[in-house]
Amino acid sequence: MSHPIKIDGHVVSQNILLELTRGITQLKGIYQQPPGLAVILVGDDPGSKAYVGRKKKACEQIGIRSFEYLLPATTSEQELVTLIQCLNHNPDVHGILLQSPVPKHLNEQLLLDLIDPKKDVDGFHPVNVGRLLLGLDTFRSCTPWGIMELLARYEISTQGKHVVIVGRSNIVGKPMAAMLIQKEANATVTICHSQTRDMKSVTNLADILIVAIGKPKFITAEYVREGAVVIDVGMNRILDPTTKTGTRLVGDVDFDSVAPKSSLITPVPGGVGPMTIAMLMKNTVKAYQQFHS
Amino acid sequence: MSHPIKIDGHVVSQNILLELTRGITQLKGIYQQPPGLAVILVGDDPGSKAYVGRKKKACEQIGIRSFEYLLPATTSEQELVTLIQCLNHNPDVHGILLQSPVPKHLNEQLLLDLIDPKKDVDGFHPVNVGRLLLGLDTFRSCTPWGIMELLARYEISTQGKHVVIVGRSNIVGKPMAAMLIQKEANATVTICHSQTRDMKSVTNLADILIVAIGKPKFITAEYVREGAVVIDVGMNRILDPTTKTGTRLVGDVDFDSVAPKSSLITPVPGGVGPMTIAMLMKNTVKAYQQFHS
Repeated sequence: MSHPIKIDGHVVSQNILLELTRGITQLKGIYQQPPGLAVILVGDDPGSKAYVGRKKKACEQIGIRSFEYLLPATTSEQELVTLIQCLNHNPDVHGILLQSPVPKHLNEQLLLDLIDPKKDVDGFHPVNVGRLLLGLDTFRSCTPWGIMELLARYEISTQGKHVVIVGRSNIVGKPMAAMLIQKEANATVTICHSQTRDMKSVTNLADILIVAIGKPKFITAEYVREGAVVIDVGMNRILDPTTKTGTRLVGDVDFDSVAPKSSLITPVPGGVGPMTIAMLMKNTVKAYQQFHS
Repeated sequence: MSHPIKIDGHVVSQNILLELTRGITQLKGIYQQPPGLAVILVGDDPGSKAYVGRKKKACEQIGIRSFEYLLPATTSEQELVTLIQCLNHNPDVHGILLQSPVPKHLNEQLLLDLIDPKKDVDGFHPVNVGRLLLGLDTFRSCTPWGIMELLARYEISTQGKHVVIVGRSNIVGKPMAAMLIQKEANATVTICHSQTRDMKSVTNLADILIVAIGKPKFITAEYVREGAVVIDVGMNRILDPTTKTGTRLVGDVDFDSVAPKSSLITPVPGGVGPMTIAMLMKNTVKAYQQFHS
């Protein structure tokens, strides 16, 4: 059989960043101010730190001013409440994000609820999640929106297709389903998860299979219908003594066994990952434009 | 084959209303105030009027004070904005609902957004819809919540079952899916709609089939798997010269052909319909309790 097309998230995300750079250059002239994104990181989880670093780099690349708040793991809830309220009122800050996860003594939902929905560029505030499900304009969660954008740029229509989503997290599975059932997407959507019976028979229905379950290489060839489009949202660091760091990043999909069966597939790394940051930048520019309109 | 069990929504809803009556009698003694529900009806659509009448009757039956605002179709948006703001501040009113649909010159979403989420007993405010999808405590939309309650009281578990929802409306299909994918329900959920290809093959996957598509008798026997539980949310008034009024209420399911194939089925009328009002009453009592806590 023919080789599947490997979807290149790096190239697509760089194209989006280029488009945004042009837009920002124009808008800065009009608004006499650059867009601003505030990132709050509590504690020093290395993964989160690396991710925040990549966000900062993307901001620099495209002309967004980034405000970083790298706070100790011992930061109190009250301190964070005060910081978020300050940022809500700061006219130089158009987007605010609280890097997840936060240390256990903090109530993450309480803090997310405090972020001004107009600056909620992660799309995690309940009012924005609700607007998404209702089909209203909103800040869309970056990872599922990035997947919609990848599909669009590879001209993979979702109209009338059966899309099966594996995983029901608040940041991927649920908003992904919410986007795909809207009239613009018109997909038939199935959501399955750890409690699904006979998952293989369900995933085999998929024209497009989106996997965000957090289990390394969980989806093997027998889960996938011949010719399906496979989107792997997993980012699992596994031990690998053959690498310099002793670890390696793998997806939730067993790429080597699944790729030959699929028509298009995203690799890990280099598939969905870079899209999340591109869409975060896009949401920040949207917040900036709405602030000035 | 054996006869299916006909799910009796009247009996279940009356049981819920009885439970609520007892609760309200107790709470009135503590709070020195009855619960209050404000219903706003704009225009004189006969269906809406009848529905508002049933809500008022349920309030009277269980000890909720009802505030009715029956306004002419010519009411301006500004008048409604003022009314909703008044009701938001009225301490005798714990729940507010705007009867849908409103006349075309009014922006329904703008008005729904104005209702204090703490008094949004219909569960239509974006923040409450978002909280539902995120799995947080909220006012749940009454019709899908009524279906969850019917299933629970007939001891039909959704754990690991494949539930297929036909229809993706903001008031039934979408919140229904949001409830069923949460950990408490643990269903595998498929949402299909007018743009779904080969719908019969999808609906035949259902252990539980929930239909809310607004097309009289659309679901016939060949859409249903032998032994499925069938929940019909449709309320379609069709012409029938053999009746006194010349019309008759039918569901989205062709009851006569589907019933022999199903293990349990809801009739129309007398299935899901009465549950919606019971859950509205339940949400009103919840709002009343939260107001006093």
